[in-house]
Order: sequence, then structure tokens, then C-alpha cells
Amino acid sequence: MSVYTKISEAQLAEWLKAYSVGTLVELKGIATGIENTNYFVTTSHGRYVLTLFERLPAQDLPFYLNLMAHLARHGIPCPSPIADRTNQLLSALGGKPAALVSRLPGTALTEPSPAHCVEVGSILADMHVAGQSYGGTLENPRGPKWWRATAPLVSPFLDEHARQLLGSELEFQSRHRCEDLPRGPVHADLFRDNVLFDGARIGGVIDFYFAGVDAWLFDVAVTLNDWCVDADGAIDRARADAFLRAYHAARPFTAVERGAWPVMLRAAALRFWLSRLYDFHLPRPGELVHAHDPDHFRRILELRIRGAAGPLPA
Amino acid sequence: MSVYTKISEAQLAEWLKAYSVGTLVELKGIATGIENTNYFVTTSHGRYVLTLFERLPAQDLPFYLNLMAHLARHGIPCPSPIADRTNQLLSALGGKPAALVSRLPGTALTEPSPAHCVEVGSILADMHVAGQSYGGTLENPRGPKWWRATAPLVSPFLDEHARQLLGSELEFQSRHRCEDLPRGPVHADLFRDNVLFDGARIGGVIDFYFAGVDAWLFDVAVTLNDWCVDADGAIDRARADAFLRAYHAARPFTAVERGAWPVMLRAAALRFWLSRLYDFHLPRPGELVHAHDPDHFRRILELRIRGAAGPLPA
Repeated sequence: MSVYTKISEAQLAEWLKAYSVGTLVELKGIATGIENTNYFVTTSHGRYVLTLFERLPAQDLPFYLNLMAHLARHGIPCPSPIADRTNQLLSALGGKPAALVSRLPGTALTEPSPAHCVEVGSILADMHVAGQSYGGTLENPRGPKWWRATAPLVSPFLDEHARQLLGSELEFQSRHRCEDLPRGPVHADLFRDNVLFDGARIGGVIDFYFAGVDAWLFDVAVTLNDWCVDADGAIDRARADAFLRAYHAARPFTAVERGAWPVMLRAAALRFWLSRLYDFHLPRPGELVHAHDPDHFRRILELRIRGAAGPLPA
Repeated sequence: MSVYTKISEAQLAEWLKAYSVGTLVELKGIATGIENTNYFVTTSHGRYVLTLFERLPAQDLPFYLNLMAHLARHGIPCPSPIADRTNQLLSALGGKPAALVSRLPGTALTEPSPAHCVEVGSILADMHVAGQSYGGTLENPRGPKWWRATAPLVSPFLDEHARQLLGSELEFQSRHRCEDLPRGPVHADLFRDNVLFDGARIGGVIDFYFAGVDAWLFDVAVTLNDWCVDADGAIDRARADAFLRAYHAARPFTAVERGAWPVMLRAAALRFWLSRLYDFHLPRPGELVHAHDPDHFRRILELRIRGAAGPLPA
């Protein structure tokens, strides 16, 4: 259970008076989510999600909220932050920074087909293109700086083989940063549980709270490493082709991206191996239930190092 | 049929490349609407309405589009204009100014109940409150200036009784302009066909192309004169009470508004009597099918002059 901050109906009804969303009908805690406390909120006008930010840096919150507002304005089906009567997207509730966003239709898939991967590739490319005109800046908070800071914290928990793998991959990545890759705002966490399918169509892309500015190709690699792999982390050719071709049709890959592809697939695997190691070995209170197996991403990293990902579409 | 400008699927598919809404799935003309050409547009990402502006002044279009974007951002279920890749809401297609907006769920009601009028009153008040932080300015295009310009054009078609009624009402209104009423952006055309009900809830408030800045109470009167009347224009007490109480709960009426209420009910009737006279006697090509009976609003004006509207809730 990840409702860290309890909000009563009376408290919320009072808070909602600062908004133009009608009166409170229902309030319901959401059990998932490890960074924030989330509630489903139904009012007389519509359905929303209330998020209380438990530990994200306060100065980064406008980047996330304005990015969602920007993408929603461009037709991306993502949560649209609701402004209060003073036109602000960010407020406070229960002593925490808080935001109300639109609730989107659909459910997350656990077994995507190539057809689903077409939709995901297409929307990811459209998010990147639409994000080009977004003015906000925030370095990817789980980028190379964070890798280097986190590795020493988790290394003591690793066996010799894993420790060597981590060290050598950090070294490899530091020699291949590909700073000339096309970049912009990236979701950076577009896993299966962050895409809601409403039938065959994507009803919503959610959870932008790992977003930042980074290489678009990093986002492509993060997404492929979740959507287009078997249970053991090996790439499923049919899903990967469907995903990459759909992306390429909406935002064609460049020559420099084709060259950097194997490096990015490894970078994306490294980032999640590290964060899962951290969450597993250094859990925070209330978090243990959600800790994923770190070994899944160690296997993916090893597979990507061995190669066989295939080239990007040209 | 009101599709004045024909757009082909090939033409639209090309135009959509400037947006991030995926690829075209279906294009379908909408027969209603007399000011603009409208199409339903379905893409791989969602459902939209394409509007080609046939005769609205080009300089006024940003006011409408930015107002819709502002209200949507505040949680009002109204069409959300979609920005293109250069972040613009207004574009051009088929030689006309054009905009793509989100398509909202629901259908218009012809026989509203008091419960429906509660929803309409509540959303109208929330629109007024949310509009307070909107920076755009546009004088109500169907306000007193337009009444005075239009009256001489339709007078020759009126019988003596109606001509006298029109003249004396214009004179009465000029003596009671109530410039101290609270004001802001108003929809100014919130008739039954511009509210989509999705079950018991409002799925969408549409057609903002008569909006402008005017007294909020004028908007309340326009809405009541359509939603809360019998076929003969007499006020239905149950629906009017439900509507006004719901509005009052979300945005309490002020003392000055209570005093101006009978004047505003007459002003709202006059405005639609005049426009219907104009559309009936001076039709434009392709418009005749939609011309409403002007006498309905003459009767409403006469009834409001006689009074018996009842006071606003206190």
C-alpha cells in the first residue's frame, strides 16, 4: 500500500473549492506508485487523479506538470493537469505539494502483441516531436550522474561477477555518451504499466515523474527493453520490429542514432538495473512490496552487451 | 447541409502531419452548424473535431481558441484545441482558418429535467469562475452595439406591433445597461444543443464561437431562457429553480445582480429575437434549413417584460 498521506473527504471537498471541477462525489486511494501518494477523485464534472508528491524535489514539479500540459495540448493522451482558480497547476494538500490531473481511460497490458507495440512506438515518436516546442528544462534525473552516484551505494551488495559487470558498463558508457544524439523531453519510464489501452487504442500514457531532457533514443531503448522482450529479457523480434517501424514512420531515426543504438540499449538496461538494485537493497519504509527483481535487468544488460538487437529501421 | 468547404482525406492526411495526433482513420462531415464547416476526425490516437472558420473575423479566432484551452485547463469539459508542431492552435486548410479540437462524449438533450438543469447551472458558474483568470478580451459580438446595428435591418420585415416592441425594448435596454454587473468571458449561446450529456453527467460544453466578455448574468439569462422554459417560452419553475440554485451554490449571485435580473432576462430574449429575425429575413446561401422561428423569442421577450420570472436565489 502506497498511500503515505491520508486525505479525508472533508479535507478534499474543502481543497476542491479552489478549483472549477464541481463537487466531490468519491475519493479512493490508489495502491500502486512508490514516489507519490495517488487518489482517484470523482467530482460532479469528471474523473481525476490527485497526486501528493512525497519526495520529488519541489523545484522539479513544474517541469513535470507543464510537460504534461504541453503534451496534452498537442493531442497526446496524457494526464492533463487542472489549474486552480488562480491559474496554478501546483498546490498543496496534507502538507505536501499536490496536483489534480485528468483521469484517462483504459487498463495496462501485461502481454502486449505486435499491434500494441505499433501504438506504443507511434505515440512515443509523437511525444518526442510534440515535446520539441516545450520550453522546460530538467536533466534526466536517472541519467549518468545518478548512475555514478548510485553505483557505489549498491556495489557492496553485489557478488564479484555483478560488481565487475557494473564497473565495466559504467566505464563503457562514459566513453560513449553520444552527446550529438537528437534530444528533448523524454518519458524515460514508458513501461507496460504506464500505458493504458482502451481497446486497441492507447487511452493514456501516464506517470511522467521520471521525465527529463535526454536523447530520444534513450527513451526508445527504455521502452523496447520492456515492451518487446520475453520473460528472460531476450528481444522478441516481431514486437521489436513493430515498435521500431511505427516509431520510425512518425519520427524517422537519423544516421547518428543508428550508430548509437547498441550503446543506448545497454544504457537503458543499466539505468533500471541500478534503480532496482537500489530499491531492493536500500528500501524505504512502505516500499518493499513493490521492489522488483534486479536480476531481470542484469540479464537484459548482459544480453544487450552480447548484441543481436538488430539495426534500427532505415 | 452546412459543409461549405470540402476537404478530402488525402488533403487532411497531409495537413495532420503538422500535428502529433497519429494517422487519419476517418473523416466525416457534420451537417449542423451555420457559422463554420465541421468534420469529425478520427486518428490512430483519438477523436477530434476539425473546424474551418467560414466567416468569423480572423482576428477574433485566438480569443475563442485560447478561451477553450483555458477552460479545459481548468477542468471544464469543453473542446480542447490541439496545438500543431509549432505550438499554434490556429492553422489553415482549404483556404480557410482551421482548428482541430478534442471531440467530447455525449449527446444533446431536447427534454431536460430539473436534474439536468442542476448540472448546467453548476458548469455555467464554474465556467465563469474559471474564466476570471483568462486574459483575452473580446466584446460580446452580439451585444448592444450589434442590437442597434441589426434592428434597422430587420424592422422593415416586422408588423407594426413587433416594430414597436423592438423599438421600445432597445430604448429600455439602453437605459438599463448595468455596467457594474460582475463580468468576464461568457459562452453567450449555452442552448440545449451546445451541452452534451454523457449519462447524468455533462460530457461536453461546445460551440464557443459566440463567446465574448459580458455580464455573467447575461449568460445566466440566455441559458435559462432556453433550458428552463416550456414550448411557449414560459418559465418552468422546477427547472429554473434547479438551474439557478446550482449556479448560486458554485458562484453566489450578488445584490446588484438580483436587481438587474429582470432586465437581463429581457436582454437575453432580445438578443436571440434579433438574430433569429436577421437569419430568417436575410438568410445566407445554405442557411435556410437551420433558420429558427423568430416568434419564439418575441414571445419570450413579451413574457419577460410582463415579469413573473421570480427572484434570484439569495
